Amino acid sequence: MSEEKKIPYKIYLDENEMPKQWYNVRADMKNKPAPLLNPGTHQPMTAEELGGVFCEELVAQELDNEHAYIDIPEEIRNFYKMYRPSPLVRAYCLEEKLGTPAKIYYKFEGNNTSGSHKLNSAIAQAYYAKKQGLKGVTTETGAGQWGTALSMACSYFDLDCKVFMVKVSYEQKPFRREVMRTYGASVTPSPSVTTDVGKKILEAHPNTTGSLGCAISEAVEVAVKNPGYRYVLGSVLNQVLLHQSVIGLETKTALDKYGIKPDIVIGCAGGGSNLGGLIAPFMGEKLRGEADYRIIAVEPASCPSFTRGVYAYDFADTGMVCPLAKMYTLGSDFIPSANHAGGLRYHGMSPVLSQLYDDGLMEATTVTQTEVFEAAEQFARVEGILPAPESSHAIRVAIDEALKCKETGEEKTIVFGLTGTGYFDMVAYEKFHDGEMTDYIPTDDELEAFRKNLPQV
Amino acid sequence: MSEEKKIPYKIYLDENEMPKQWYNVRADMKNKPAPLLNPGTHQPMTAEELGGVFCEELVAQELDNEHAYIDIPEEIRNFYKMYRPSPLVRAYCLEEKLGTPAKIYYKFEGNNTSGSHKLNSAIAQAYYAKKQGLKGVTTETGAGQWGTALSMACSYFDLDCKVFMVKVSYEQKPFRREVMRTYGASVTPSPSVTTDVGKKILEAHPNTTGSLGCAISEAVEVAVKNPGYRYVLGSVLNQVLLHQSVIGLETKTALDKYGIKPDIVIGCAGGGSNLGGLIAPFMGEKLRGEADYRIIAVEPASCPSFTRGVYAYDFADTGMVCPLAKMYTLGSDFIPSANHAGGLRYHGMSPVLSQLYDDGLMEATTVTQTEVFEAAEQFARVEGILPAPESSHAIRVAIDEALKCKETGEEKTIVFGLTGTGYFDMVAYEKFHDGEMTDYIPTDDELEAFRKNLPQV
Repeated sequence: MSEEKKIPYKIYLDENEMPKQWYNVRADMKNKPAPLLNPGTHQPMTAEELGGVFCEELVAQELDNEHAYIDIPEEIRNFYKMYRPSPLVRAYCLEEKLGTPAKIYYKFEGNNTSGSHKLNSAIAQAYYAKKQGLKGVTTETGAGQWGTALSMACSYFDLDCKVFMVKVSYEQKPFRREVMRTYGASVTPSPSVTTDVGKKILEAHPNTTGSLGCAISEAVEVAVKNPGYRYVLGSVLNQVLLHQSVIGLETKTALDKYGIKPDIVIGCAGGGSNLGGLIAPFMGEKLRGEADYRIIAVEPASCPSFTRGVYAYDFADTGMVCPLAKMYTLGSDFIPSANHAGGLRYHGMSPVLSQLYDDGLMEATTVTQTEVFEAAEQFARVEGILPAPESSHAIRVAIDEALKCKETGEEKTIVFGLTGTGYFDMVAYEKFHDGEMTDYIPTDDELEAFRKNLPQV
Repeated sequence: MSEEKKIPYKIYLDENEMPKQWYNVRADMKNKPAPLLNPGTHQPMTAEELGGVFCEELVAQELDNEHAYIDIPEEIRNFYKMYRPSPLVRAYCLEEKLGTPAKIYYKFEGNNTSGSHKLNSAIAQAYYAKKQGLKGVTTETGAGQWGTALSMACSYFDLDCKVFMVKVSYEQKPFRREVMRTYGASVTPSPSVTTDVGKKILEAHPNTTGSLGCAISEAVEVAVKNPGYRYVLGSVLNQVLLHQSVIGLETKTALDKYGIKPDIVIGCAGGGSNLGGLIAPFMGEKLRGEADYRIIAVEPASCPSFTRGVYAYDFADTGMVCPLAKMYTLGSDFIPSANHAGGLRYHGMSPVLSQLYDDGLMEATTVTQTEVFEAAEQFARVEGILPAPESSHAIRVAIDEALKCKETGEEKTIVFGLTGTGYFDMVAYEKFHDGEMTDYIPTDDELEAFRKNLPQV
């Protein structure tokens, strides 16, 4: 125990230990992720086609399956220094509370005003947009973490930022909206009458409360129709996982400093940005046959893309204006049950992670909402940090694995990603405290119905 | 510039560089702060009398004007390690935006779930309560930072925590309340019918929205009437300033590491907990004649204890159940105008800081609310962090001093305390964005009226 205590509560890296390059796991994958397809021709999207929607350098990153390391521009590294390196925390207090011999670490990405890891990619995407001389960018946001991160990043580079916020979140999370306004972004509830696709959706479903897929369609339309604008996305895409690899690289450097080798790496999975970033260097070692790790994706039982979806080409958005992506998907019409709180509500999953999962290189599991909030509260009380509901999916499984170690006596080392804070999720916490939170697990028939619109590729 | 850049964006200390002792500035004061008086006899409160309200060891700390250094118990240091050392940040981005030759640093205390520096004293007070074998503690909270911090601390030591929350905040800040519930605290809107003093106040003022002074009276009553309970307070007291010295000690260590000597140290001042903690070691050097610094307290124009109050013995609470304290005060009936957002609303000021101010060892200034939010938004956009309204008082004056340097060309080094984050203050930010925020400066006649109830000592 005394020897163990040499490992500090928080392992901080020096600024000069921060990664200078992102790691591109695709370079080490034998089976590359399937390419994005043109929704009309079903041919792989060319750089030129993608360039109408995304910034040039981001298109290059999106298509690059070759280079394992890509330089992080100095401007981005300087911004990273405002809130990175993020701490890798040894959860001594949680371990003691659980009475487990397991050693638990978490990489905490919530210590910035956007409150989550999303800022890592937002600042990169804003930088490339600025470099290309663009006026601004458009995007969608659901729970609001991505929109907040992007508005901070755009404010830093003096770019215009137009956010389409899922209507139900816009109404239920006015404070999130207000943070985005503080950073100078314009925020429009989606679906809206400001776009053709929004009008069409409103005609068909006048009372819809919106969905991520629908907000994506609107944001893409505005980017394509306005000269000097491009669309940016906070998850799913290859480029986003590339930027988020900074999480895993820092984690690995911090662990290596103390000679720690994790047995299990756990991350929550919505579109895959956090999980893909956290596991990147560990998966790299696994792909290159240098080491082995159990890697676990945790998703909500109410939005189970990995565990109950199909691996197929699907639309990335409701309006079907985006390229097709091959991924684990529940169908582009899928909307989680109304009782689902927080994020992790996208119908699909990162094509990179989908391929790795299909190749048996990682596991996936689901947890129910009340299980998640029980873990969140337990964690908050001993570790201090009030976790986001999304992050708490990973906490739940980390605790469960630690309790298994308690039974077996194994001293496993568990690392999980604590993606963000829950300050803007107190309505969900309140429901949990008042015993009003319910769980919903979709039936097979319900999931089957959502899959009817899968494109025939 | 290249040499300057050697100073990192964030100066982090190692855990072993964290202070092992708090610094008690009273030991170096020639003129000691005036003692607390028994409200009935007007004689100095004895340790025995104070022991009915406060924990024993905290009473000893309250009365100790002799020892300059007091050991921080290991249990408290271990808790500190969960969120300390806190970063000292070089505000490169703000400096660049302002175009100032000044060098600006801020000590950021918001990187913990309670969102502010209040946790530094909360954990100490909870520890001593636990050590004494108490069942629990009672307290009051206004904007909610202190209540949140105390509920986190009590949850860690498994103590019951009863919080009286100023009614208007209880209703307007349900999320703050919910965070406290997450940590297992009971939260009662004040004034309430659960106490005699609450009933009395409600009879006299049935429509009152409450005040800090009133919530203090209720919390003290419950502590005194319930065996195994004591009352704890988040500011004003000598013991609180002692605990908060950890802020200043870390700041000084970080600056010393890089050979930096500040010219100006700036902190916001409500009851004085942050300011007193931040300036402690700098004031110590000044008192001992080892160095000189400009030290500036910033208070709201709507609650100007230092700048427009009187230095006199006054009641610490509305119900007049607490000891009398000699301090700069606006009168115990003072309630800031309804348009005042955030904290810094206490009618009095720390007796330690009051004495130092009276001795001419520090300055004080006031800023209006809209000036404060302008600075907050400017800061958020370049430095990333969304500041609490309280902290933004210090930001405002730091920016103003940096702009003076721009005019004169002086390369002054400015250090200010960034006490917390503004996640639970978005209603105020919204008002500011919508142009609905107003300023209010009380007239001399209004202030005079509040002073009529000063006790005759």
